Amino acid sequence: MAKQISLEKKVLSENDRLAADIREQLSQNKIVALNFVSSPGSGKTSLLERTLGVLNNEIRIGLIAGDVQTENDADRLLRAGGKMVRPVITGGACHLDGKMILRVLPELNLDNLDLLFIENVGNLVCPSSYDLGEDMKVVLISTTEGDDKPLKYPAMFRRSSVMVINKIDLLGTSEFDTEKVKENALSINARLKIFEVSCRTGEGLEDWYVWLRSLVVGKHGVLD
Amino acid sequence: MAKQISLEKKVLSENDRLAADIREQLSQNKIVALNFVSSPGSGKTSLLERTLGVLNNEIRIGLIAGDVQTENDADRLLRAGGKMVRPVITGGACHLDGKMILRVLPELNLDNLDLLFIENVGNLVCPSSYDLGEDMKVVLISTTEGDDKPLKYPAMFRRSSVMVINKIDLLGTSEFDTEKVKENALSINARLKIFEVSCRTGEGLEDWYVWLRSLVVGKHGVLD
Repeated sequence: MAKQISLEKKVLSENDRLAADIREQLSQNKIVALNFVSSPGSGKTSLLERTLGVLNNEIRIGLIAGDVQTENDADRLLRAGGKMVRPVITGGACHLDGKMILRVLPELNLDNLDLLFIENVGNLVCPSSYDLGEDMKVVLISTTEGDDKPLKYPAMFRRSSVMVINKIDLLGTSEFDTEKVKENALSINARLKIFEVSCRTGEGLEDWYVWLRSLVVGKHGVLD
Repeated sequence: MAKQISLEKKVLSENDRLAADIREQLSQNKIVALNFVSSPGSGKTSLLERTLGVLNNEIRIGLIAGDVQTENDADRLLRAGGKMVRPVITGGACHLDGKMILRVLPELNLDNLDLLFIENVGNLVCPSSYDLGEDMKVVLISTTEGDDKPLKYPAMFRRSSVMVINKIDLLGTSEFDTEKVKENALSINARLKIFEVSCRTGEGLEDWYVWLRSLVVGKHGVLD
Protein backbone atom coordinates (compact mmCIF):
# COMPACT_ATOMS: atom_id res chain seq x y z
CA MET A 1 0.00 0.00 0.00
CA ALA A 2 2.86 2.36 0.84
CA LYS A 3 4.34 1.56 -2.54
CA GLN A 4 1.03 2.38 -4.21
CA ILE A 5 0.75 5.70 -2.40
CA SER A 6 4.31 6.72 -3.27
CA LEU A 7 3.69 5.86 -6.93
CA GLU A 8 0.51 7.93 -6.89
CA LYS A 9 2.52 10.82 -5.49
CA LYS A 10 5.08 10.40 -8.23
CA VAL A 11 2.39 10.33 -10.93
CA LEU A 12 0.80 13.45 -9.48
CA SER A 13 4.06 15.38 -9.16
CA GLU A 14 4.95 14.44 -12.75
CA ASN A 15 1.50 15.73 -13.69
CA ASP A 16 2.16 18.98 -11.81
CA ARG A 17 5.28 19.50 -13.91
CA LEU A 18 3.31 19.02 -17.14
CA ALA A 19 0.54 21.31 -15.86
CA ALA A 20 3.11 24.05 -15.22
CA ASP A 21 4.24 23.71 -18.84
CA ILE A 22 0.63 24.01 -20.07
CA ARG A 23 0.00 26.99 -17.78
CA GLU A 24 3.09 28.72 -19.15
CA GLN A 25 1.99 28.22 -22.77
CA LEU A 26 -1.51 29.49 -22.00
CA SER A 27 -0.19 32.45 -20.09
CA GLN A 28 2.16 33.50 -22.90
CA ASN A 29 -0.87 33.59 -25.18
CA LYS A 30 -3.07 35.33 -22.57
CA ILE A 31 -5.60 32.54 -22.71
CA VAL A 32 -8.12 32.02 -19.92
CA ALA A 33 -8.52 28.28 -19.33
CA LEU A 34 -11.39 26.66 -17.46
CA ASN A 35 -11.53 22.97 -16.52
CA PHE A 36 -15.15 21.76 -16.34
CA VAL A 37 -15.81 18.90 -13.93
CA SER A 38 -18.98 17.15 -12.75
CA SER A 39 -20.86 13.88 -12.54
CA PRO A 40 -21.79 12.39 -15.89
CA GLY A 41 -25.00 14.05 -17.03
CA SER A 42 -24.84 17.30 -15.07
CA GLY A 43 -24.75 19.29 -18.29
CA LYS A 44 -21.13 20.23 -19.03
CA THR A 45 -21.59 19.82 -22.79
CA SER A 46 -24.94 21.63 -22.72
CA LEU A 47 -23.38 24.59 -20.90
CA LEU A 48 -20.59 24.77 -23.48
CA GLU A 49 -23.07 24.50 -26.38
CA ARG A 50 -25.10 27.40 -24.99
CA THR A 51 -21.96 29.44 -24.35
CA LEU A 52 -20.71 28.91 -27.89
CA GLY A 53 -24.09 30.01 -29.19
CA VAL A 54 -23.71 33.39 -27.49
CA LEU A 55 -19.98 34.12 -27.29
CA ASN A 56 -18.60 32.40 -30.40
CA ASN A 57 -18.60 35.58 -32.48
CA GLU A 58 -17.00 37.86 -29.91
CA ILE A 59 -14.45 35.61 -28.18
CA ARG A 60 -12.07 33.11 -29.79
CA ILE A 61 -12.87 29.87 -28.01
CA GLY A 62 -10.96 26.58 -28.06
CA LEU A 63 -12.47 23.40 -26.65
CA ILE A 64 -10.96 20.12 -25.49
CA ALA A 65 -13.65 17.48 -24.95
CA GLY A 66 -12.51 14.54 -22.83
CA ASP A 67 -14.36 11.25 -22.63
CA VAL A 68 -13.59 7.66 -21.71
CA GLN A 69 -14.99 6.61 -25.08
CA THR A 70 -16.71 8.25 -28.09
CA GLU A 71 -16.32 11.68 -29.61
CA ASN A 72 -20.00 12.43 -28.97
CA ASP A 73 -19.29 15.56 -26.91
CA ALA A 74 -16.76 16.93 -29.39
CA ASP A 75 -19.30 16.32 -32.18
CA ARG A 76 -21.98 18.22 -30.25
CA LEU A 77 -19.59 21.14 -29.72
CA LEU A 78 -18.73 21.20 -33.42
CA ARG A 79 -22.42 21.24 -34.29
CA ALA A 80 -22.89 24.10 -31.81
CA GLY A 81 -20.42 26.16 -33.84
CA GLY A 82 -17.14 25.35 -32.13
CA LYS A 83 -14.34 26.39 -34.45
CA MET A 84 -11.46 24.83 -32.59
CA VAL A 85 -12.62 21.58 -30.96
CA ARG A 86 -10.38 18.65 -30.11
CA PRO A 87 -11.63 15.37 -28.64
CA VAL A 88 -9.48 13.45 -26.16
CA ILE A 89 -10.48 9.84 -25.62
CA THR A 90 -8.92 8.59 -22.40
CA GLY A 91 -9.48 4.94 -23.37
CA GLY A 92 -10.54 3.83 -19.91
CA ALA A 93 -8.84 6.42 -17.73
CA CYS A 94 -11.24 8.17 -15.38
CA HIS A 95 -9.82 11.69 -15.77
CA LEU A 96 -7.85 13.93 -18.10
CA ASP A 97 -4.21 14.51 -17.19
CA GLY A 98 -1.50 16.94 -18.21
CA LYS A 99 0.01 14.58 -20.75
CA MET A 100 -3.27 14.27 -22.66
CA ILE A 101 -3.70 18.04 -22.76
CA LEU A 102 -0.10 18.68 -23.83
CA ARG A 103 -0.51 16.22 -26.68
CA VAL A 104 -3.47 18.11 -28.14
CA LEU A 105 -2.37 21.67 -27.34
CA PRO A 106 -0.24 22.19 -30.49
CA GLU A 107 -3.31 21.55 -32.65
CA LEU A 108 -5.25 24.35 -30.98
CA ASN A 109 -3.54 27.34 -32.54
CA LEU A 110 -2.97 29.07 -29.22
CA ASP A 111 -2.05 32.46 -30.65
CA ASN A 112 -5.59 32.65 -32.01
CA LEU A 113 -7.45 31.87 -28.77
CA ASP A 114 -8.82 33.96 -25.92
CA LEU A 115 -10.56 31.26 -23.95
CA LEU A 116 -9.98 27.52 -23.56
CA PHE A 117 -12.69 25.25 -22.23
CA ILE A 118 -11.56 21.81 -21.12
CA GLU A 119 -14.45 19.41 -20.59
CA ASN A 120 -13.21 16.69 -18.26
CA VAL A 121 -14.48 13.11 -17.98
CA GLY A 122 -17.76 12.94 -16.05
CA ASN A 123 -16.50 11.93 -12.61
CA LEU A 124 -16.79 13.78 -9.31
CA VAL A 125 -13.77 12.10 -7.75
CA CYS A 126 -10.59 11.51 -9.76
CA PRO A 127 -10.38 14.66 -11.94
CA SER A 128 -10.05 16.73 -8.76
CA SER A 129 -6.48 15.44 -8.31
CA TYR A 130 -5.18 16.39 -11.76
CA ASP A 131 -4.12 19.94 -12.50
CA LEU A 132 -4.47 20.59 -16.23
CA GLY A 133 -2.83 24.01 -16.18
CA GLU A 134 -6.22 25.71 -16.00
CA ASP A 135 -6.90 29.06 -14.34
CA MET A 136 -9.77 27.48 -12.45
CA LYS A 137 -11.99 24.46 -12.17
CA VAL A 138 -15.71 24.95 -12.73
CA VAL A 139 -17.81 22.26 -11.04
CA LEU A 140 -21.36 21.65 -12.24
CA ILE A 141 -24.09 20.12 -10.15
CA SER A 142 -27.61 19.59 -11.39
CA THR A 143 -30.84 19.86 -9.46
CA THR A 144 -31.65 16.24 -10.27
CA GLU A 145 -28.72 15.06 -8.14
CA GLY A 146 -28.62 15.16 -4.34
CA ASP A 147 -27.99 18.47 -2.60
CA ASP A 148 -25.46 16.76 -0.32
CA LYS A 149 -23.00 16.15 -3.18
CA PRO A 150 -20.51 18.81 -1.97
CA LEU A 151 -20.26 17.01 1.37
CA LYS A 152 -19.90 13.58 -0.25
CA TYR A 153 -17.29 14.69 -2.82
CA PRO A 154 -15.53 17.49 -0.93
CA ALA A 155 -12.20 17.50 -2.81
CA MET A 156 -13.87 18.53 -6.04
CA PHE A 157 -15.74 21.42 -4.45
CA ARG A 158 -12.67 22.49 -2.46
CA ARG A 159 -10.50 22.65 -5.59
CA SER A 160 -13.07 24.40 -7.77
CA SER A 161 -13.40 28.16 -7.96
CA VAL A 162 -16.88 28.20 -9.46
CA MET A 163 -20.00 26.09 -8.97
CA VAL A 164 -22.71 26.11 -11.62
CA ILE A 165 -26.05 24.76 -10.42
CA ASN A 166 -27.72 23.52 -13.60
CA LYS A 167 -31.26 22.34 -14.47
CA ILE A 168 -33.02 24.92 -12.29
CA ASP A 169 -36.00 24.47 -14.63
CA LEU A 170 -36.45 21.07 -12.93
CA LEU A 171 -36.55 22.47 -9.38
CA GLY A 172 -39.54 21.06 -7.56
CA THR A 173 -39.44 17.68 -9.31
CA SER A 174 -37.24 16.28 -6.53
CA GLU A 175 -36.22 17.09 -2.95
CA PHE A 176 -33.23 19.14 -4.17
CA ASP A 177 -32.90 22.33 -2.09
CA THR A 178 -30.87 25.10 -3.75
CA GLU A 179 -30.18 26.91 -0.49
CA LYS A 180 -29.00 23.66 1.06
CA VAL A 181 -26.59 22.85 -1.79
CA LYS A 182 -25.14 26.36 -1.59
CA GLU A 183 -24.74 26.08 2.16
CA ASN A 184 -23.10 22.66 1.80
CA ALA A 185 -20.75 23.85 -0.94
CA LEU A 186 -19.76 27.04 0.90
CA SER A 187 -19.06 25.04 4.05
CA ILE A 188 -16.41 23.19 2.02
CA ASN A 189 -15.16 26.23 0.12
CA ALA A 190 -16.31 29.66 1.24
CA ARG A 191 -14.84 31.42 -1.81
CA LEU A 192 -16.86 29.47 -4.37
CA LYS A 193 -18.53 31.71 -6.97
CA ILE A 194 -22.00 30.37 -7.72
CA PHE A 195 -24.26 30.52 -10.78
CA GLU A 196 -27.80 29.13 -10.96
CA VAL A 197 -28.79 28.29 -14.51
CA SER A 198 -30.85 26.17 -16.84
CA CYS A 199 -28.96 25.18 -19.97
CA ARG A 200 -32.29 24.00 -21.32
CA THR A 201 -34.27 27.24 -21.00
CA GLY A 202 -31.32 29.63 -20.84
CA GLU A 203 -32.43 31.04 -17.49
CA GLY A 204 -29.60 32.54 -15.44
CA LEU A 205 -27.01 32.27 -18.18
CA GLU A 206 -26.67 36.01 -18.80
CA ASP A 207 -24.60 36.40 -15.62
CA TRP A 208 -22.41 33.52 -16.72
CA TYR A 209 -21.66 35.18 -20.07
CA VAL A 210 -20.93 38.51 -18.39
CA TRP A 211 -18.52 36.79 -16.04
CA LEU A 212 -16.74 34.95 -18.89
CA ARG A 213 -16.36 38.20 -20.81
CA SER A 214 -14.88 39.85 -17.72
CA LEU A 215 -12.34 37.04 -17.35
CA VAL A 216 -11.16 37.46 -20.92
CA VAL A 217 -11.05 41.24 -20.69
CA GLY A 218 -9.17 40.93 -17.39
CA LYS A 219 -6.44 38.81 -18.93
CA HIS A 220 -6.38 40.33 -22.38
CA GLY A 221 -6.69 44.02 -21.65
CA VAL A 222 -9.57 44.55 -24.09
CA LEU A 223 -11.38 42.32 -26.56
CA ASP A 224 -10.05 42.63 -30.12
CA MET B 1 3.93 4.29 -17.37
CA ALA B 2 4.72 0.57 -17.76
CA LYS B 3 5.49 0.49 -14.06
CA GLN B 4 2.17 2.15 -13.29
CA ILE B 5 0.27 -0.36 -15.41
CA SER B 6 1.99 -3.34 -13.81
CA LEU B 7 1.21 -1.96 -10.35
CA GLU B 8 -2.42 -1.49 -11.34
CA LYS B 9 -2.50 -5.11 -12.47
CA LYS B 10 -1.03 -6.20 -9.16
CA VAL B 11 -3.58 -4.17 -7.20
CA LEU B 12 -6.41 -5.64 -9.27
CA SER B 13 -5.20 -9.23 -8.98
CA GLU B 14 -4.84 -8.78 -5.20
CA ASN B 15 -8.40 -7.44 -5.24
CA ASP B 16 -9.58 -10.50 -7.18
CA ARG B 17 -8.15 -12.72 -4.47
CA LEU B 18 -10.05 -10.80 -1.78
CA ALA B 19 -13.22 -10.83 -3.88
CA ALA B 20 -13.00 -14.62 -4.16
CA ASP B 21 -12.81 -14.80 -0.35
CA ILE B 22 -15.93 -12.58 -0.05
CA ARG B 23 -17.76 -14.63 -2.68
CA GLU B 24 -16.97 -17.82 -0.78
CA GLN B 25 -18.31 -16.41 2.52
CA LEU B 26 -21.49 -15.17 0.82
CA SER B 27 -21.98 -18.44 -1.00
CA GLN B 28 -21.64 -20.48 2.19
CA ASN B 29 -24.43 -18.41 3.65
CA LYS B 30 -26.54 -18.54 0.45
CA ILE B 31 -26.58 -14.75 0.24
CA VAL B 32 -27.41 -12.98 -3.02
CA ALA B 33 -25.12 -9.94 -3.35
CA LEU B 34 -25.70 -7.01 -5.68
CA ASN B 35 -23.19 -4.22 -6.28
CA PHE B 36 -24.98 -0.96 -7.20
CA VAL B 37 -23.02 1.41 -9.43
CA SER B 38 -23.89 4.68 -11.17
CA SER B 39 -23.09 8.35 -11.53
CA PRO B 40 -23.60 10.38 -8.38
CA GLY B 41 -27.27 11.29 -8.19
CA SER B 42 -28.78 8.55 -10.36
CA GLY B 43 -30.78 7.29 -7.41
CA LYS B 44 -28.95 4.32 -5.89
CA THR B 45 -29.92 5.24 -2.34
CA SER B 46 -33.50 6.04 -3.39
CA LEU B 47 -33.86 2.63 -5.04
CA LEU B 48 -32.57 0.92 -1.90
CA GLU B 49 -34.87 2.98 0.33
CA ARG B 50 -37.90 1.98 -1.77
CA THR B 51 -36.79 -1.65 -1.82
CA LEU B 52 -36.38 -1.75 1.95
CA GLY B 53 -39.86 -0.28 2.31
CA VAL B 54 -41.39 -3.23 0.44
CA LEU B 55 -39.11 -6.22 1.06
CA ASN B 56 -37.76 -5.55 4.55
CA ASN B 57 -40.31 -7.76 6.29
CA GLU B 58 -40.01 -10.75 3.97
CA ILE B 59 -36.30 -10.85 3.11
CA ARG B 60 -33.34 -10.37 5.46
CA ILE B 61 -31.39 -7.54 3.84
CA GLY B 62 -27.89 -6.30 4.65
CA LEU B 63 -26.57 -3.04 3.23
CA ILE B 64 -23.08 -1.65 2.78
CA ALA B 65 -23.18 2.05 1.84
CA GLY B 66 -19.96 3.35 0.34
CA ASP B 67 -19.11 7.03 0.02
CA VAL B 68 -16.01 9.15 -0.36
CA GLN B 69 -17.13 11.15 2.66
CA THR B 70 -20.16 11.30 5.00
CA GLU B 71 -22.48 8.58 6.27
CA ASN B 72 -25.48 10.33 4.67
CA ASP B 73 -26.50 7.34 2.57
CA ALA B 74 -26.15 4.89 5.44
CA ASP B 75 -28.26 7.22 7.59
CA ARG B 76 -30.95 7.35 4.90
CA LEU B 77 -31.00 3.55 4.70
CA LEU B 78 -31.30 3.27 8.48
CA ARG B 79 -34.22 5.72 8.44
CA ALA B 80 -35.80 3.63 5.67
CA GLY B 81 -35.85 0.68 8.04
CA GLY B 82 -32.54 -0.99 7.25
CA LYS B 83 -31.77 -3.40 10.08
CA MET B 84 -28.20 -4.25 9.09
CA VAL B 85 -26.55 -1.18 7.54
CA ARG B 86 -22.83 -0.49 7.54
CA PRO B 87 -21.24 2.67 6.09
CA VAL B 88 -17.86 2.51 4.39
CA ILE B 89 -16.10 5.85 3.97
CA THR B 90 -13.39 5.49 1.35
CA GLY B 91 -11.67 8.71 2.48
CA GLY B 92 -10.90 9.92 -1.02
CA ALA B 93 -10.81 6.66 -2.96
CA CYS B 94 -13.12 6.68 -5.96
CA HIS B 95 -14.44 3.12 -5.56
CA LEU B 96 -15.05 0.37 -3.04
CA ASP B 97 -12.58 -2.50 -3.09
CA GLY B 98 -12.43 -6.01 -1.70
CA LYS B 99 -10.43 -4.98 1.34
CA MET B 100 -13.06 -2.45 2.42
CA ILE B 101 -15.84 -5.02 2.07
CA LEU B 102 -13.90 -7.74 3.90
CA ARG B 103 -13.29 -5.36 6.78
CA VAL B 104 -17.00 -4.74 7.33
CA LEU B 105 -18.34 -8.22 6.48
CA PRO B 106 -17.88 -9.72 9.99
CA GLU B 107 -20.20 -7.03 11.40
CA LEU B 108 -23.02 -8.04 9.07
CA ASN B 109 -24.08 -11.28 10.72
CA LEU B 110 -23.99 -13.24 7.47
CA ASP B 111 -25.88 -16.29 8.78
CA ASN B 112 -28.89 -14.04 9.21
CA LEU B 113 -28.95 -12.52 5.71
CA ASP B 114 -30.61 -13.47 2.43
CA LEU B 115 -29.65 -10.47 0.36
CA LEU B 116 -26.71 -8.05 0.47
CA PHE B 117 -26.88 -4.68 -1.27
CA ILE B 118 -23.56 -2.92 -1.74
CA GLU B 119 -23.98 0.72 -2.72
CA ASN B 120 -20.75 1.77 -4.42
CA VAL B 121 -19.29 5.27 -4.67
CA GLY B 122 -21.09 7.36 -7.30
CA ASN B 123 -18.69 7.00 -10.25
CA LEU B 124 -19.31 5.49 -13.68
CA VAL B 125 -15.64 4.66 -14.30
CA CYS B 126 -13.45 3.25 -11.54
CA PRO B 127 -15.86 0.92 -9.66
CA SER B 128 -16.21 -1.14 -12.85
CA SER B 129 -12.67 -2.52 -12.31
CA TYR B 130 -13.19 -3.77 -8.75
CA ASP B 131 -14.90 -7.09 -8.12
CA LEU B 132 -16.48 -7.02 -4.65
CA GLY B 133 -17.48 -10.68 -4.63
CA GLU B 134 -21.00 -9.79 -5.77
CA ASP B 135 -23.27 -12.02 -7.84
CA MET B 136 -23.84 -9.14 -10.20
CA LYS B 137 -23.43 -5.44 -10.72
CA VAL B 138 -26.57 -3.33 -11.14
CA VAL B 139 -25.95 -0.09 -13.01
CA LEU B 140 -28.40 2.77 -12.65
CA ILE B 141 -28.89 5.51 -15.19
CA SER B 142 -31.39 8.31 -14.77
CA THR B 143 -33.46 10.01 -17.44
CA THR B 144 -31.87 13.35 -16.53
CA GLU B 145 -28.48 12.15 -17.76
CA GLY B 146 -27.56 11.66 -21.43
CA ASP B 147 -28.84 8.59 -23.27
CA ASP B 148 -25.34 8.04 -24.70
CA LYS B 149 -23.85 7.18 -21.28
CA PRO B 150 -23.50 3.43 -22.11
CA LEU B 151 -21.34 4.34 -25.10
CA LYS B 152 -19.25 6.85 -23.15
CA TYR B 153 -18.69 4.56 -20.15
CA PRO B 154 -18.77 1.12 -21.81
CA ALA B 155 -16.83 -0.88 -19.19
CA MET B 156 -19.47 -0.28 -16.56
CA PHE B 157 -22.31 -1.40 -18.80
CA ARG B 158 -20.32 -4.37 -20.09
CA ARG B 159 -19.61 -5.61 -16.57
CA SER B 160 -23.12 -5.09 -15.24
CA SER B 161 -25.85 -7.70 -15.48
CA VAL B 162 -28.74 -5.33 -14.88
CA MET B 163 -29.51 -1.76 -15.89
CA VAL B 164 -32.12 0.22 -13.98
CA ILE B 165 -33.38 3.30 -15.82
CA ASN B 166 -34.53 5.60 -13.02
CA LYS B 167 -36.55 8.87 -12.92
CA ILE B 168 -38.97 7.85 -15.69
CA ASP B 169 -41.40 10.34 -14.10
CA LEU B 170 -39.11 13.05 -15.54
CA LEU B 171 -39.23 11.74 -19.12
CA GLY B 172 -40.06 14.58 -21.48
CA THR B 173 -38.21 17.22 -19.45
CA SER B 174 -35.04 16.61 -21.50
CA GLU B 175 -33.96 15.02 -24.77
CA PHE B 176 -33.43 11.63 -23.07
CA ASP B 177 -34.76 8.82 -25.27
CA THR B 178 -35.49 5.56 -23.44
CA GLU B 179 -35.38 3.43 -26.58
CA LYS B 180 -32.05 5.00 -27.50
CA VAL B 181 -30.45 4.31 -24.11
CA LYS B 182 -31.63 0.70 -24.27
CA GLU B 183 -30.27 0.32 -27.77
CA ASN B 184 -26.95 1.87 -26.73
CA ALA B 185 -26.68 -0.31 -23.63
CA LEU B 186 -27.59 -3.52 -25.46
CA SER B 187 -25.03 -2.75 -28.15
CA ILE B 188 -22.39 -2.87 -25.38
CA ASN B 189 -23.92 -5.82 -23.52
CA ALA B 190 -26.71 -7.76 -25.20
CA ARG B 191 -27.53 -9.78 -22.07
CA LEU B 192 -28.32 -6.76 -19.90
CA LYS B 193 -31.61 -7.14 -18.00
CA ILE B 194 -33.43 -3.80 -17.97
CA PHE B 195 -35.89 -2.19 -15.57
CA GLU B 196 -37.60 1.16 -16.11
CA VAL B 197 -38.62 2.76 -12.85
CA SER B 198 -39.29 5.91 -10.90
CA CYS B 199 -38.04 5.72 -7.33
CA ARG B 200 -40.01 8.88 -6.69
CA THR B 201 -43.47 7.69 -7.77
CA GLY B 202 -42.84 3.94 -7.44
CA GLU B 203 -43.75 3.30 -11.09
CA GLY B 204 -42.19 0.15 -12.54
CA LEU B 205 -40.79 -1.08 -9.24
CA GLU B 206 -43.13 -4.08 -8.90
CA ASP B 207 -41.12 -6.00 -11.53
CA TRP B 208 -37.93 -5.14 -9.67
CA TYR B 209 -39.27 -6.57 -6.41
CA VAL B 210 -40.50 -9.72 -8.17
CA TRP B 211 -37.08 -10.19 -9.70
CA LEU B 212 -35.27 -9.69 -6.35
CA ARG B 213 -37.57 -12.24 -4.71
CA SER B 214 -36.83 -14.72 -7.49
CA LEU B 215 -33.08 -14.26 -6.98
CA VAL B 216 -33.35 -15.04 -3.28
CA VAL B 217 -35.67 -18.01 -3.84
CA GLY B 218 -33.32 -19.27 -6.54
CA LYS B 219 -30.33 -19.29 -4.21
CA HIS B 220 -32.10 -20.17 -1.02
CA GLY B 221 -34.52 -22.83 -2.16
CA VAL B 222 -37.53 -21.17 -0.50
CA LEU B 223 -37.98 -18.10 1.65
CA ASP B 224 -38.04 -18.89 5.36
